[in-house]
Amino acid sequence: MARIVQKYGGTSVGDVERIKKVAERIKAIRDEGNELVVVVSARAGVTNELIARAKSVCENPSERELDQLLSIGEQETIALTAMALQGVGVAAVSYTGAQAGIVTDRSHTKARIHTIDPKSINRDLKAGKVVIVAGFQGINDEGQTTTLGRGGSDLTAIALAAALKADKCEIYTDVDGVYTADPRVVKTAKKLDEISYDEMLELASSGSKVMQSRSVEFAKKYGVVFEVRSSFNHNPGTIVKEEVAYMERVVVRGVAVDKDQAKVIVSNIVDKPGSAAKVFRCLADANIIVDMIVQNVGRHGVANLTFTVPQTDTHKAVKALEPALATIGGGQVAVHEHIAKLSVVGVGMKTHSGVAATLFQTLADAGINIELISTSEIKISIVIDQDRADEAARLAHAAFGLENL
Amino acid sequence: MARIVQKYGGTSVGDVERIKKVAERIKAIRDEGNELVVVVSARAGVTNELIARAKSVCENPSERELDQLLSIGEQETIALTAMALQGVGVAAVSYTGAQAGIVTDRSHTKARIHTIDPKSINRDLKAGKVVIVAGFQGINDEGQTTTLGRGGSDLTAIALAAALKADKCEIYTDVDGVYTADPRVVKTAKKLDEISYDEMLELASSGSKVMQSRSVEFAKKYGVVFEVRSSFNHNPGTIVKEEVAYMERVVVRGVAVDKDQAKVIVSNIVDKPGSAAKVFRCLADANIIVDMIVQNVGRHGVANLTFTVPQTDTHKAVKALEPALATIGGGQVAVHEHIAKLSVVGVGMKTHSGVAATLFQTLADAGINIELISTSEIKISIVIDQDRADEAARLAHAAFGLENL
Repeated sequence: MARIVQKYGGTSVGDVERIKKVAERIKAIRDEGNELVVVVSARAGVTNELIARAKSVCENPSERELDQLLSIGEQETIALTAMALQGVGVAAVSYTGAQAGIVTDRSHTKARIHTIDPKSINRDLKAGKVVIVAGFQGINDEGQTTTLGRGGSDLTAIALAAALKADKCEIYTDVDGVYTADPRVVKTAKKLDEISYDEMLELASSGSKVMQSRSVEFAKKYGVVFEVRSSFNHNPGTIVKEEVAYMERVVVRGVAVDKDQAKVIVSNIVDKPGSAAKVFRCLADANIIVDMIVQNVGRHGVANLTFTVPQTDTHKAVKALEPALATIGGGQVAVHEHIAKLSVVGVGMKTHSGVAATLFQTLADAGINIELISTSEIKISIVIDQDRADEAARLAHAAFGLENL
Repeated sequence: MARIVQKYGGTSVGDVERIKKVAERIKAIRDEGNELVVVVSARAGVTNELIARAKSVCENPSERELDQLLSIGEQETIALTAMALQGVGVAAVSYTGAQAGIVTDRSHTKARIHTIDPKSINRDLKAGKVVIVAGFQGINDEGQTTTLGRGGSDLTAIALAAALKADKCEIYTDVDGVYTADPRVVKTAKKLDEISYDEMLELASSGSKVMQSRSVEFAKKYGVVFEVRSSFNHNPGTIVKEEVAYMERVVVRGVAVDKDQAKVIVSNIVDKPGSAAKVFRCLADANIIVDMIVQNVGRHGVANLTFTVPQTDTHKAVKALEPALATIGGGQVAVHEHIAKLSVVGVGMKTHSGVAATLFQTLADAGINIELISTSEIKISIVIDQDRADEAARLAHAAFGLENL
């Protein structure tokens, strides 16, 4: 008998038929004698519908009210999932975030989990019930409903797995697991049996949409081993953990492409201490996340700063730069939106050299120009022309032998 | 400055446009300097939609899960109403039943309110906020979501008015108030300016759909004066309270018709002590509410029992009678579904005689046969042919001069 925490995403519980399928899957695992805690998201599309309804009554509703509204999406699916289990003869009980004792801080729409009190859940598990918990939501110390932000349901599952000392944590989604590259782009992409937290984190920040970094960071911090797998088949997925078997032998484990970035070039700014700090302070104040940064010092004591920002923030960034440039003196801003960031990720890079050289040579041979380079211990990211990004991903995937993993 | 509790029903908050209209109405009353607590129902139709969805995943879901599911209907409207107020510049905050401190007993789907802790609401009122509270729901001592059953939102409003010592309680609905008869049937029907709790209770139990008896009973018990009025216009409504002006002068204040009853005749049962008790015990055990009861003793020591039950329960009633008749010995069951119950109600009947005689003579003159009669201190109910019910209502309305009220 094992204690298992499962999480089903919005497409897995997208309508009543799918909820019934999920109930059958849960029943099968339950019938093997396991204790089960199941976290569910809102039905796919419901959260966006609710946001649209909110915007139609108020341009700028308070975040407290948004949380009060959005939390009903998961409250619907927990009740329906518990009922579907009752329908197939499995004792089940649903918990809102508040009922599950998930206490967060007070920051609405992006709350952080402070504590989880697993007392009630443990009692219901002991009583032989399957416990269904609303993902994405909690309660703060004032009794207000809070939500955890993007990827919040994954976070609920991983935090519950830690609090309940679960033997297993399974994140069910609409893909089979973590691949060496996006299978829609790179036909030879392979599903990874295992991946380390750090590689998963670098992939998440590199445009791989499987999971948000936040949940992976939480899992790494509390040592929660979890599996990413599909709710539409019974294939084994990808296990995410600290140490991965054969890690040393394999240098690169994944290639990711992010087409949602834009490149901003601030040229001819006066090259004196504090110029760059002023530029990035004003971007930070505008809540713009800057990713890759490169600075070149040109002639005549002027410098060029190049960096990438999310495409959705391009105009906000240009606007935010104005006051900084005014105080620095000089500087022109140019924006290139038609770019892509390609990243190769692998823990093996820590101990193997030559990865960068191989990547650069591969792209050079194909005549693909590299506009920006940025590296971490286990990742190399480059910015290239968006039109050639998919081709570059296929070439890099082949160059590092990922189809043979 | 007054402290006002308002309640808006499902049609009043049926879509975002109507919610905006309600927000404007609230803003106007707020701008006059009043403190406002607003109870809202789920959007019209949402509760039935949710029940249908529940039934599609499980034939017989647990009542706990039904409550967990149904409570989201009001949770949506409280958040949207608070946002709509924010949209027109009014500070507003929404409360679920649990957040409002509405503690109920543990009986799901028809919970009774035990206590209301008005601390948080009082704090927000003092801070100048309009407080929006979810009707129909509460929390029990185990932290489970409960719902109050039919008419639950009215009950929430009246209970809050009592707990908050409100100066006024306004129940907004889709009718202008309480009429002397259904205006769709009796064209000359008049809206009553005032009505007593007792008359309102008798009208509610006589098929008038304005409010459930339960909320009126609660108001009577705690002395909450309330007004029933329309959210679609600004006409004054009907004030419901203990003592009504000019009560002595007016004998009859309303005529109600209920076409949802069926007549059950149990004939030729052995006339010995305990026979009737056995019949009604088995109906009570099947949770069937019996309304009018008449017993005649016939020849040869056999008796006939006639009573009315809700039409939806007719088959259940016939089924429930079988074991009772088996132990009593003998008895045939017949059912007439094509009946109507007509009631005339008025506190003045306590001190005036001749009401029954006037009613019976009026119907006799029109050749309408009376099948059953039952009376209370302030009501006379009769069962007649359903086809002549509307005509009878018009005749009774005229006979008691209600168009001149």
